[in-house]
Amino acid sequence: MPQKYSDRLADIQQAQQSTLCVGLDPDPDRLPSHLVDEFGVVRATSYFIEAIVDATLPFCAAYKINFAFFEALGPDGLKVLADARRCIPADRIALADAKRGDIGNTARFYARSVFEEMGFDAITISPYMGSDSVTPFLEYTGKGSYVLVRTSNKAASDIQLMKSSDNQYLYTRVARLAQEWSENLAGSLGFVMGASDIEALVSIRSEYPDRPLLIPGVGAQGGDIEQVVSALQGGDAPYLINSSRGILYASSGSDFAEMSGRAARKLRDQLRD
Amino acid sequence: MPQKYSDRLADIQQAQQSTLCVGLDPDPDRLPSHLVDEFGVVRATSYFIEAIVDATLPFCAAYKINFAFFEALGPDGLKVLADARRCIPADRIALADAKRGDIGNTARFYARSVFEEMGFDAITISPYMGSDSVTPFLEYTGKGSYVLVRTSNKAASDIQLMKSSDNQYLYTRVARLAQEWSENLAGSLGFVMGASDIEALVSIRSEYPDRPLLIPGVGAQGGDIEQVVSALQGGDAPYLINSSRGILYASSGSDFAEMSGRAARKLRDQLRD
Repeated sequence: MPQKYSDRLADIQQAQQSTLCVGLDPDPDRLPSHLVDEFGVVRATSYFIEAIVDATLPFCAAYKINFAFFEALGPDGLKVLADARRCIPADRIALADAKRGDIGNTARFYARSVFEEMGFDAITISPYMGSDSVTPFLEYTGKGSYVLVRTSNKAASDIQLMKSSDNQYLYTRVARLAQEWSENLAGSLGFVMGASDIEALVSIRSEYPDRPLLIPGVGAQGGDIEQVVSALQGGDAPYLINSSRGILYASSGSDFAEMSGRAARKLRDQLRD
Repeated sequence: MPQKYSDRLADIQQAQQSTLCVGLDPDPDRLPSHLVDEFGVVRATSYFIEAIVDATLPFCAAYKINFAFFEALGPDGLKVLADARRCIPADRIALADAKRGDIGNTARFYARSVFEEMGFDAITISPYMGSDSVTPFLEYTGKGSYVLVRTSNKAASDIQLMKSSDNQYLYTRVARLAQEWSENLAGSLGFVMGASDIEALVSIRSEYPDRPLLIPGVGAQGGDIEQVVSALQGGDAPYLINSSRGILYASSGSDFAEMSGRAARKLRDQLRD
């Protein structure tokens, strides 16, 4: 029987002394131009990802692969995605940032695709369609499923901060429901909680101290690291702080990999202090 | 300048005298076994889709391709998906049922992938992350973006029927917000409205008579055709009634294509009467 996802993540973080997750969002317009000129966009993306993973490996616990950027490459995109997945060694977490959400029959196919075919350890899921869009992922022992609760983008407040008839934010209701859905299922339920809403982070962390959190939105999206780390104290479950653009695009020159490694080390150290 | 999506859909429906959308959800476990035995699952899926499209073409206005079933085929899945897309002729709508929803920067990549790389005419989108996850799709002239409002699965009520502080269902709030987001954008905004909640269908159709609707949930999911069609009277915008499993799996024998054509014709006729 595979180890529980949340325990495995905690072990990896202990071993690496890092809570950092590096987000792999390869934007063709921001790849180092010497790579694109030499290899073309598709092969340059594979090369870029491999170099970034090599350079940042000593400093992080996890990689988050954003499916959109690979699918946008066209029919070869899934092969590049599979290459990227293979770059991530077994002693790190490979997280599929796919934000899937569909009816049960379809969700089962997404779960099979991401966990079995592609071999990811964890995934992000949208809750809008309710329990049957989430539970097929939670049935996988050893895997982690992070439900979108309070996301880091500015417009997230449109829906997530709606007040319900009992005067609660929608996102708090989503967290409670997701917790109910996960009961008696073998997978680990986690929450996506953006770094930009510290109040939400404090409230969810204190109410659900045993839920792994995936926290995007530091760096390019403006979340303050000190406030975020302080909001997370008191919880037991492992959390991952994700940075994508701040690490990937630390330099666009031939030193891009070295500079991404430095950016990752700097952020890892800030998160540790 | 391309024709507005909603106008083009109305023209196609007029020409074909059909409101039927055939959902392409190729489940490997339900493909005709003689195809799988002869070609293996991946090639059998391509062959199956091509035969189904050929047989149902005279009876439908649109095809909805469910990405999950293709992605679950592994790295070859996107090629099979591209083959499926190519089977759909230019005088029918090709709808990407991908339920994408991510922050603006990522949403732009999904939009580029689905509308430009793959050449779909329309897509389904999840609203949970707010306006910036939806508007990048709505910026495409000539394309349609169907936002999930009230979906047809049973568990959809978990979130979508939450009551807000002004005593309204969440889904009605989502429809209003999506309408606001779409203002001054060139694409056509539509709503996904499941056939299983007739009350919701009546209320949304009367409040938004000029919004195209995509209506899943007749057939295998139990929606009653007569009630659905009656709920849609009075609106102006074209609607699509989707059926997937009831048409795809009408027979699992060597007559599968012929029987799917018959099932499509029967449903088209029921929708017309």
